[in-house]
Amino acid sequence: MTDIKEIAERARLASRALGRASTSAKNLALESFACRIEQSAGTLLARNAEDVRNAEAEGLNRSLIERLKLSDSKIHQMVASVRQVVGLNDPTGQVLRDTLLDDGLELQQVTVPFGTIAAIVESRPDAVVQLISLALKSGNALIVKAGREANATVAAIEQLVRCSLLEQELPEGCVTVIYGREAVADLLGMVDWIDLIVPRGSKELIRYVQDNTRIPVIGHAEGICHIYVDAEADCEMATRVILDAKTQAPSACNAVETVLIHRDAADFVPRLAKALANASVRVRGCEVTARLAAGTPIDVITDESEWATEYGDLTIAVRVVENLDQAMTHIARFGSGHTDSILTSNPEVAQRFLREVDSAGVFHNASTRFADGFRYGLGAEVGISTGKLPPRGPAGLDGLVTYKWLLRGNGHCASSYTGENAKPFKHRQCHASAGRCRQLTSQSSPAASKFTT
Amino acid sequence: MTDIKEIAERARLASRALGRASTSAKNLALESFACRIEQSAGTLLARNAEDVRNAEAEGLNRSLIERLKLSDSKIHQMVASVRQVVGLNDPTGQVLRDTLLDDGLELQQVTVPFGTIAAIVESRPDAVVQLISLALKSGNALIVKAGREANATVAAIEQLVRCSLLEQELPEGCVTVIYGREAVADLLGMVDWIDLIVPRGSKELIRYVQDNTRIPVIGHAEGICHIYVDAEADCEMATRVILDAKTQAPSACNAVETVLIHRDAADFVPRLAKALANASVRVRGCEVTARLAAGTPIDVITDESEWATEYGDLTIAVRVVENLDQAMTHIARFGSGHTDSILTSNPEVAQRFLREVDSAGVFHNASTRFADGFRYGLGAEVGISTGKLPPRGPAGLDGLVTYKWLLRGNGHCASSYTGENAKPFKHRQCHASAGRCRQLTSQSSPAASKFTT
Repeated sequence: MTDIKEIAERARLASRALGRASTSAKNLALESFACRIEQSAGTLLARNAEDVRNAEAEGLNRSLIERLKLSDSKIHQMVASVRQVVGLNDPTGQVLRDTLLDDGLELQQVTVPFGTIAAIVESRPDAVVQLISLALKSGNALIVKAGREANATVAAIEQLVRCSLLEQELPEGCVTVIYGREAVADLLGMVDWIDLIVPRGSKELIRYVQDNTRIPVIGHAEGICHIYVDAEADCEMATRVILDAKTQAPSACNAVETVLIHRDAADFVPRLAKALANASVRVRGCEVTARLAAGTPIDVITDESEWATEYGDLTIAVRVVENLDQAMTHIARFGSGHTDSILTSNPEVAQRFLREVDSAGVFHNASTRFADGFRYGLGAEVGISTGKLPPRGPAGLDGLVTYKWLLRGNGHCASSYTGENAKPFKHRQCHASAGRCRQLTSQSSPAASKFTT
Repeated sequence: MTDIKEIAERARLASRALGRASTSAKNLALESFACRIEQSAGTLLARNAEDVRNAEAEGLNRSLIERLKLSDSKIHQMVASVRQVVGLNDPTGQVLRDTLLDDGLELQQVTVPFGTIAAIVESRPDAVVQLISLALKSGNALIVKAGREANATVAAIEQLVRCSLLEQELPEGCVTVIYGREAVADLLGMVDWIDLIVPRGSKELIRYVQDNTRIPVIGHAEGICHIYVDAEADCEMATRVILDAKTQAPSACNAVETVLIHRDAADFVPRLAKALANASVRVRGCEVTARLAAGTPIDVITDESEWATEYGDLTIAVRVVENLDQAMTHIARFGSGHTDSILTSNPEVAQRFLREVDSAGVFHNASTRFADGFRYGLGAEVGISTGKLPPRGPAGLDGLVTYKWLLRGNGHCASSYTGENAKPFKHRQCHASAGRCRQLTSQSSPAASKFTT
């Protein structure tokens, strides 16, 4: 515990230095990190081979070892992912709002790093590299809790990034790796030292993290996504989209788990059941579905609570509903607030669904699989959050910054604006500031001409 | 507990109806609420007199009874505050980001209500009225936990708003008042039913709420604000700003508690001490301050931890520091992340302070008292948050909305964009969407002309 407190204190100090670093200093450090990974590919592969040997000797499971194992092409991808982050806009120093409160009194709402981020990852070395580049680019110090089985590989990565940081006169405390499960509880308790937690791993891990810390968490425990096939849906489109949403990556959180079908589209049921069976998808469903599926075997769902299942494999649940309202009630009750889609050619019905379904992503005539930071055009994905506070849904680099309010005056006192002879505020918005469009200059001085009434 | 669960379920249902209500329906309900308060002033005063009589009979403390007591002018202010909210822009349905992912596939990030808000307030009827209007305008159902001592008054207010809701065919479950301390713990546990908690009251209440719920909370437990007087500060301005920040409203969270003075500005110490004493402010300080204060009695602070005190009255702490870095270290260690200000004529020093101090508000040459939603031009203030996640600092009506992602396609599948023959994404931003500038139309259809590369 003391160790982790010391690490967190060093990270806090380092984050202050990183917070005042220029975009180019951060980019140079990341570019140097990418070069070092390239140049040290041989060393990385050798250290990784040690980890893999140990993991095999300990009999760790196959899929974990697969994720742990590096290859030339994985290293190539790692390097490319760092360079991709170099190419993204700096998310800090963006002026979100710019208001002239009165002559000479200017308020700016400006994006800033959170401070220190703790990431809890499983054994994937490429995930560690990606988190390092996202944290540094957004000006945050990073503490990574990695699996002990990746010890040799991740320690080598830490070494490389620390050299790159020192080269840019940035403190090496910006990135620290710790190992082992017992460190997790310590991290979760450090509410005064850690500003954000990014857990990556199993549902159980993420739920444990959410349940055991007061530090904000970016992550989702479950992805129970729905597709609602309206009475006015195009059956061919519906089959195509549902197959895409279920089979393209069945274990992904944005894969569909339940299809709801309007009873007036009942003749779609046997057609869908057949298409799913042909794609080796096991179909579960309500009694009506089973009756309509004619020939395709349906495993009937008898216990209501089973509708809240994230299968994560080639299994899907199908339910026939009375109408749009029943579909939305089903989604509100059994969904996880991740992503839900409606298939319909009726714009009024689509509009009601888009407006009333309370999920991070609500789609019309599109596969739930689009719910992803890269596909959304966010450049990179830190995680997907099903909580309601921002960041909600896929979080990109922007998810790693918050904002603060800067007020620049000339000796202004609040008493001038209260009481009998109170001066009125002007509250003029600066037009140029709409959106994240203006980089904060290092010496921004309020110029009256920027403002309009 | 069952009662509150039922209330929360009704609120959830009501919030769905409210979420699809038009801006004008919400405004008409609020305008009707304002009229009803005006017309029922007599009844309200009579019910309030009952509450006040009971509170006096129970021997409740004087300041609580003051806050509970209504008058013609307080009712007038209540009505004006509701009408002010009618005049604010609807914070929902704003398009924050609008991206053409590919032909016919449009992504929008759109502001939406949280859903159900629970407010925990003490006995001020005017605070209840303000929260009701802010919640309804932002499309959120509201559960208000009021003090039992305000029972008769608040029940009358609830009655008025429910009549106004029904008049607009909005469910009365949009606003529900519950009473008594024991309801708080029940509310805090309802993570699946309540989306946001707004506690208003003592530090102890707010800390208790933050420590005992996984529901997001808008609020701050402490306001330990600092003013740092740099070596290059104008002494006259410094005296004026410090007096404003301490004496204008000593119990406010944005009042200054500690003044840090650069040692090269040591001759400012006796001058400030005298001015503070003349304003009946009791001065505490470090030993150097006590030595320099010449004639003004200083209560010497010997225990470091005392620097983290929110006096909330006419008491102030003064410390002489070596330099800017020591000032910022002091603020990081003893501050509460609320609002801190630097007084200096040196722009580089100001810029470092603005950049490196990690508080919700960081000011230059201005009184900390400006940290306030109304003064910031946010229209109204829901609360001030010292947490790092948005909303940070004063939260206006915007603090009561979050966003969701809407994707409209034409049968698009993710598989088209992956693998060997992957189609590239276009990711064209729509310019018109920069900032919260465009109201979501009820039938928004993607028009290619909106987008530019």
